[in-house]
Amino acid sequence: MSLLLDALRAAVGPAHVLRDGDLSAYEVDWRKRYHGRALAVVRPGSTAEVAAVVRLCREHATSLVPQGGNTGLVGGGVPDDSGRQVLLSLGRMQRIRQLDADNLTVTVEAGCVLQALQQTAADAGLLFPLSLAAEGSCTIGGNLASNAGGTQVLRYGNARELCLGLEVVTPQGEVWDGLSGLRKDNTGYDLRDLFIGSEGTLGVITAATLKLHPRPGATMTALAACPSIEACVALLRRARQRLDAGLTGFELMERFALALVAQHFPSLPQPLPAAPWTVLLELAAPSEAQARDSLEAVLGEALDSGEAHDAVVAESLAQSHALWHLRESIPLAQAEEGLNIKNDIALPVSAIPGFVTEMGDTLRALVPGIRLVTFGHLGDGNLHYNLQAPQGVPAADFLAQHEAVLNQRVYDAVMACGGSFSAEHGIGALKCSELARRKSPVALGMMRAIKQALDPQGLMNPGRLLQP
Amino acid sequence: MSLLLDALRAAVGPAHVLRDGDLSAYEVDWRKRYHGRALAVVRPGSTAEVAAVVRLCREHATSLVPQGGNTGLVGGGVPDDSGRQVLLSLGRMQRIRQLDADNLTVTVEAGCVLQALQQTAADAGLLFPLSLAAEGSCTIGGNLASNAGGTQVLRYGNARELCLGLEVVTPQGEVWDGLSGLRKDNTGYDLRDLFIGSEGTLGVITAATLKLHPRPGATMTALAACPSIEACVALLRRARQRLDAGLTGFELMERFALALVAQHFPSLPQPLPAAPWTVLLELAAPSEAQARDSLEAVLGEALDSGEAHDAVVAESLAQSHALWHLRESIPLAQAEEGLNIKNDIALPVSAIPGFVTEMGDTLRALVPGIRLVTFGHLGDGNLHYNLQAPQGVPAADFLAQHEAVLNQRVYDAVMACGGSFSAEHGIGALKCSELARRKSPVALGMMRAIKQALDPQGLMNPGRLLQP
Repeated sequence: MSLLLDALRAAVGPAHVLRDGDLSAYEVDWRKRYHGRALAVVRPGSTAEVAAVVRLCREHATSLVPQGGNTGLVGGGVPDDSGRQVLLSLGRMQRIRQLDADNLTVTVEAGCVLQALQQTAADAGLLFPLSLAAEGSCTIGGNLASNAGGTQVLRYGNARELCLGLEVVTPQGEVWDGLSGLRKDNTGYDLRDLFIGSEGTLGVITAATLKLHPRPGATMTALAACPSIEACVALLRRARQRLDAGLTGFELMERFALALVAQHFPSLPQPLPAAPWTVLLELAAPSEAQARDSLEAVLGEALDSGEAHDAVVAESLAQSHALWHLRESIPLAQAEEGLNIKNDIALPVSAIPGFVTEMGDTLRALVPGIRLVTFGHLGDGNLHYNLQAPQGVPAADFLAQHEAVLNQRVYDAVMACGGSFSAEHGIGALKCSELARRKSPVALGMMRAIKQALDPQGLMNPGRLLQP
Repeated sequence: MSLLLDALRAAVGPAHVLRDGDLSAYEVDWRKRYHGRALAVVRPGSTAEVAAVVRLCREHATSLVPQGGNTGLVGGGVPDDSGRQVLLSLGRMQRIRQLDADNLTVTVEAGCVLQALQQTAADAGLLFPLSLAAEGSCTIGGNLASNAGGTQVLRYGNARELCLGLEVVTPQGEVWDGLSGLRKDNTGYDLRDLFIGSEGTLGVITAATLKLHPRPGATMTALAACPSIEACVALLRRARQRLDAGLTGFELMERFALALVAQHFPSLPQPLPAAPWTVLLELAAPSEAQARDSLEAVLGEALDSGEAHDAVVAESLAQSHALWHLRESIPLAQAEEGLNIKNDIALPVSAIPGFVTEMGDTLRALVPGIRLVTFGHLGDGNLHYNLQAPQGVPAADFLAQHEAVLNQRVYDAVMACGGSFSAEHGIGALKCSELARRKSPVALGMMRAIKQALDPQGLMNPGRLLQP
């Protein structure tokens, strides 16, 4: 191993091969469920250095774990505990290589923090719409490797839909320059989308060319109180029909989710009285007046039709932020209430009312008093369907006793509806066996064949996504 | 071979294994450049029958050529002239399996004609936005296998962006049911996008789940006369900024392209006087009044800034159609003028002014009097950059003498700008050697490895896309 370490030091500089001191920022995942130990943390400063590191690891039959901002939720970016894997941190590669305003594209290195990229776009009068809770520390390389979702998917798509081209270091240590800024390019297999979402198991994304969008003239937010989940789906359909691409957000919050926010954050104003379901709508429009007119028209129709029984449109940008803040406080309020079981699931929108009703009955029968915290991106069919211990039951006991069984019941029902057991968080180490169990053998066979074809030595992030 | 033929007849019924009579509708491509001869034309009626046909061909080491509406432009869907390939026509599989209005999706079999699908969506009050010249006969399976583009890409994306899930028969004759209707699903490698654009070389697409969109309340079209190609790009930038997702089309027409239309179709009204460049803008908006206001505002700014020196907004739906008809008559007018060299290229929008200026000078120096017919989807960076013989020179002589050299000069310049030599038509047989020559060895190596991994016997559409 000392031969490899010496060669790595020569390749990236001794200061960028870390072995001593507290390396927990690299070795422990964000949710602190995976505590790994790396042979070394290697921080290359350029694509050529990444390629050199990969070639050296290959020569020494040493596997690599690529890492961006280490904010992943499924343990896909931290080393195992063998002390034999190289942790390849892209954190030094932060350069914006080019912003092309006429082509509405930006080319950026993998280690660029999402928020820095958003700011670069804003400085040019443009919008990079990917937005998620970790944006202050996650990196664009990690966003692409995990096909990140977030709050703007309804209008702008996942990370996949925002990417036009990639630069990748292959498992052989070669550089694929696929940094196309083209909207149309039908020349061969779609390698780009194969790497997006592959969680570092097929190669290392070192840079990307991304789509930019015009900044909307105005954005406006509203809340609507709905009598049922069916009414929420009907309101979504109406809002899409009336607002089309102007509808940039449609978030769902069940009564208990907002009650938890009221309990733990009593200073946050809740402008509507408690309702079975509350929906947050966000609209982008050329002007504030147009945004208000359109939102009020849709909500007026919803009130007339009974899809909503109360509604409020934000009076100011500050009030818009406050409405979003309510929605974003749900996970925090849950954490205050104690550990819970998190499910990041997706369903066809049409299947959500049936799922929510039947699953709730099933779970309450299994664990009397269980508290369901249902919220999420209804417009994308993506629910955060979280399960909290019955009042008074210690969270640790609840998890120890029920987590495995409840997860399986939820996933069984999700799959029966044509849904997904990982909507936006990916597979990583956490859901590796779930993937092996639940994906069709035909799909798994093709995935394994592709992995074997591109990384025959199995050196890229082994044990993540696909089981070894 | 008679064993295979008997087995195929048993699998799909004797009436659906064609060997006699005029099979040119299957064996000759739409542009009549490829005249093949099939062992048999086989027309399965279900996914199970497709799988059976693939397994039988595999047992008999016989290769397959999948075919949809046979409207491809690069010879990717017709058999070679060996008489040993099975032509697998999906034409009988036309069923709409499910339309889910709340989820905004439709699941449809591969042989469904694009126009039938558009109509199905319209009947449900929704929009399937893929639109191209061949829509009356092309099929959705072919659209996906070739990642079709068309006239609505600026707003809605290519076929790839409209697809959520696929059903595919693999080269092993297994069925992969990937008919997901989910907007978010991060469970493993993106097999869907690998099959989209793979031109039948990795498997047979038998069905797809596609995105639907709301129908815009109103659509309006305008023409603007611009003094230069730089002004057209500036107007595009302004229109995107002001109209955002409302901008559904931005088409470019050079003076000579419209002059050809005037010459060959003198009855078509041309509402603006001849200008160096004419741009067609299309806007979708909730109402006709809003559409007109927005278009007039943008065009007013363009006139003030000098980006345009004249403009007209359609007064009616009929006039909107007439403006599109002008644009769509360019290829027909070209055909009237005689055979010509067609280039389906894409460039970063920012590179287009330089390319058009420099390439024009180069080509006019090489072939004095050469006539350039430049038009296309400026909003997508996709130019149809066609070359017509000098006045009085027979087209056949021009092509024989110059086609190969001029193609290479154009492609060289396109690649130097970071462009693509096949924006929306694909590779097929026509551009197979071009792909081998112009793609990076790293990309080609990965493509070959994937082909080998998924189709080790090389039975799926061999010699197309990748050289054998």
